[in-house]
Amino acid sequence: MNDIQSENDDRRIGIDKVGVRSVRYPIIVSDRASETQSTVATLDITVDLPHHHRGTHMSRFLEVLSRFHRETFIDKLPEFLAEVRRALDADRAFVHISFPYFIRKTAPVSGSKSLQVYDCWFDAALGDGYELRIGVDVPVTTLCPCSREISERGAHNQRSQVRVELCYERFIWLEEIIETVESCASCELWPLLKREDERWVTEHAYDNPRFVEDIVREVTLRLQADERIRSFVVESENMESIHSHNAYARKAWVRGPGGADD
Amino acid sequence: MNDIQSENDDRRIGIDKVGVRSVRYPIIVSDRASETQSTVATLDITVDLPHHHRGTHMSRFLEVLSRFHRETFIDKLPEFLAEVRRALDADRAFVHISFPYFIRKTAPVSGSKSLQVYDCWFDAALGDGYELRIGVDVPVTTLCPCSREISERGAHNQRSQVRVELCYERFIWLEEIIETVESCASCELWPLLKREDERWVTEHAYDNPRFVEDIVREVTLRLQADERIRSFVVESENMESIHSHNAYARKAWVRGPGGADD
Amino acid sequence: MNDIQSENDDRRIGIDKVGVRSVRYPIIVSDRASETQSTVATLDITVDLPHHHRGTHMSRFLEVLSRFHRETFIDKLPEFLAEVRRALDADRAFVHISFPYFIRKTAPVSGSKSLQVYDCWFDAALGDGYELRIGVDVPVTTLCPCSREISERGAHNQRSQVRVELCYERFIWLEEIIETVESCASCELWPLLKREDERWVTEHAYDNPRFVEDIVREVTLRLQADERIRSFVVESENMESIHSHNAYARKAWVRGPGGADD
Amino acid sequence: MNDIQSENDDRRIGIDKVGVRSVRYPIIVSDRASETQSTVATLDITVDLPHHHRGTHMSRFLEVLSRFHRETFIDKLPEFLAEVRRALDADRAFVHISFPYFIRKTAPVSGSKSLQVYDCWFDAALGDGYELRIGVDVPVTTLCPCSREISERGAHNQRSQVRVELCYERFIWLEEIIETVESCASCELWPLLKREDERWVTEHAYDNPRFVEDIVREVTLRLQADERIRSFVVESENMESIHSHNAYARKAWVRGPGGADD
Repeated sequence: MNDIQSENDDRRIGIDKVGVRSVRYPIIVSDRASETQSTVATLDITVDLPHHHRGTHMSRFLEVLSRFHRETFIDKLPEFLAEVRRALDADRAFVHISFPYFIRKTAPVSGSKSLQVYDCWFDAALGDGYELRIGVDVPVTTLCPCSREISERGAHNQRSQVRVELCYERFIWLEEIIETVESCASCELWPLLKREDERWVTEHAYDNPRFVEDIVREVTLRLQADERIRSFVVESENMESIHSHNAYARKAWVRGPGGADD
Repeated sequence: MNDIQSENDDRRIGIDKVGVRSVRYPIIVSDRASETQSTVATLDITVDLPHHHRGTHMSRFLEVLSRFHRETFIDKLPEFLAEVRRALDADRAFVHISFPYFIRKTAPVSGSKSLQVYDCWFDAALGDGYELRIGVDVPVTTLCPCSREISERGAHNQRSQVRVELCYERFIWLEEIIETVESCASCELWPLLKREDERWVTEHAYDNPRFVEDIVREVTLRLQADERIRSFVVESENMESIHSHNAYARKAWVRGPGGADD
Repeated sequence: MNDIQSENDDRRIGIDKVGVRSVRYPIIVSDRASETQSTVATLDITVDLPHHHRGTHMSRFLEVLSRFHRETFIDKLPEFLAEVRRALDADRAFVHISFPYFIRKTAPVSGSKSLQVYDCWFDAALGDGYELRIGVDVPVTTLCPCSREISERGAHNQRSQVRVELCYERFIWLEEIIETVESCASCELWPLLKREDERWVTEHAYDNPRFVEDIVREVTLRLQADERIRSFVVESENMESIHSHNAYARKAWVRGPGGADD
Repeated sequence: MNDIQSENDDRRIGIDKVGVRSVRYPIIVSDRASETQSTVATLDITVDLPHHHRGTHMSRFLEVLSRFHRETFIDKLPEFLAEVRRALDADRAFVHISFPYFIRKTAPVSGSKSLQVYDCWFDAALGDGYELRIGVDVPVTTLCPCSREISERGAHNQRSQVRVELCYERFIWLEEIIETVESCASCELWPLLKREDERWVTEHAYDNPRFVEDIVREVTLRLQADERIRSFVVESENMESIHSHNAYARKAWVRGPGGADD
């Protein structure tokens, strides 16, 4: 059978990325509290394609993935990408892995235990060097400072999503990023809250009003202060309780040569 | 060319519904305030298929739709379905049309004007008789009665979605259903709120706490009292500000022979 | 602290379902090939609420879930629902659990192994009796019989989704339903196909053309012949390669007293 | 009432973007064939926020939008952004507008008319200068060259999505981008195809096999040859009929000083 993909291509156009997308596969990730955690990932795996090749061999992405998914995958991303690059005969290999990640949380007053889900992702590239960005969506409560200030009673509040994506110099746990974000919100969330907890979170949010701008600034201050972090993007989005649209803020930051804001 | 779809089928299995799904088309709908409104619909159009036919002729659904979409479509659903049924040589024809619908709203204090979107749908069937169900998702604010009662300050609140689907004996405007739902919530939403409006909605929500159960019961009472309505389903879902999951309630109701709860 | 939820309600309106929605939690499911499989579920858990209670106690749903999720959950749904019903002091309890489920597949010629994902769900209710519906979305290839017949070369084909939801009298594995559906399509899917496999699936699909109507009828014949099955709904939806809308067919069936079509 | 948003902020952190997201509003767009077209947009509107201001005034985004939406919006984006920037007292203003856009198509043999939907977007920024990127998702058919070559009969094919986003020096119609993309695919799509058309599209796709890589390269060649275009990104994604994951390719390009590939 002819190998059409290996045919010469004379259009002289190299392709930045080619591969498979929205592949769902079970994976194992490292977990600070309990060593490992089984979860289900969605993966995009791609390589570059030089101008003289007509096509890539899509099945090889799955072959490599099938060999790696039973291990603690994330810890071996450089090996995984090296293997993809080798199998596809490419210069650069890329992978984006997103997955739900669960952390056991303890309610603030009752001490009730439950598992909170966080949508996380790893975005890695292997070319001349290796680059990794890790990200997480952290759901929190925000309570509007303006609404609290101008109203005689109550204050509008809502579920918000805070997204952080960062590059680090030295290893950082997802749990650390999540704790940082949660400490910057009006209140963090728990799946299981008894009545005494609900009172605590209501009053705690009321006592810590935050705009989307505040969340972004507070997270920025904390992440800038962490010398392991080289760059980040933080976004905050409120599912406003008083509107059917959302409020949004975003900041990107890169550590300068002397550690300054870029 | 052979007409494979018209071939005989000897498996003796009639099909309930066959047709096209997720067709997007511009449509015109009647609007209580300004006669007509242009919007973009997603349509599923189907017919039944007797056991002796192998397949239906999918292109005919689009032919009929192309003839009807420029008129005030919804007012002509019985004609549209009769035409679908005729074109497909079927006994029954069905259509589900969903579309965003805009209503001009006036902020409660400042009087500022803006357009609020509502996701609406019409679900119609023509067989021995004609049946129509109309539905709408109404976004509102709910403020938790428990949180307010047990807390010294504040109360958690959030954006909620109230879904109503109903059958009527006599014509009801979507606007009427929307107003009914909004009057049952802790507060209705406006896209554009000035500071004096934000104060009003904050205090109004605080003064009208509602569980998802309360929303469902209040809407139920109003719809039961409207003699034009034959049956309905009401659902309320809070995007809880203190959890990353939702709170939910649902009630279905059919008017009995003497008008009683069924 | 007052228990607002337990207050009397004098609106005299019982609520069909009230509870939590879109809860994400890790679960363990039974797996025909390897005993158990870890996956991530999305759950809706509800109970009925008598007319004289104002509200339900949402935290208890999470408490019960937190106790059950580490076991092979699905095998214990009656116990789980009994526990929910007891904890919420209700007459009826309901749960809808959806989750990705992975099956190891072997490519038809090369014998290459890979994991195929299927979106599955369990829908259970405990009232006077216990009812369970299980469902699965099976992605397959369909090749159009009309296109093949009328064209001199080629035939349009596409990815399709076949959805089956059924009630059984005696236990049926998800794997059995999936195999049934896959045997009715133009071709089943594999994540990993080498060139010799790709040839096989191309020719196999060309040799087995199927309309959405054919899929529904073939699946219907197989499921009717399985005496363990009491009722089912089968739906087939083609992401047509020649249109940006889908083709769709649906059939519902209930076994009659003597086993006949209802 | 205090204006909390206007308070001084001493955290010394400027914010890149702050504003409203997922606002749905009816808009009017220019249409090459019939002057204007009414559609429904989803908008994100943001500004930068200097470090010394605590918050932005979210209602003003909606005020400006409410004044502009009844005109042919897209033609006035620089004015719209200037007005947003003025109302929010900002240095930079940004808007992302996405909307379904309909084009009347004529089937290749029968000449039947129908409306094909395309998801389009405009992404504009006003700072020191004005920048505009326009984008469109074009659904097409792709037929696999490898499958055709190695198989004795048939060839797998599928619906694909080709995404183009570009910056131009001189005005380009969305219709022109769409026609370019459609001419590079195995076949373009029509909502309404009679049997003679279905034969034509089946054979046309068979005669024009394309990998995702081919689509990207063909579109690249055409867009590079159009001197009005300054830069573009083209992506192609196949909803593979033989897999439940997708095949994907991507290329970004910027015209060099002398017009060369950058």
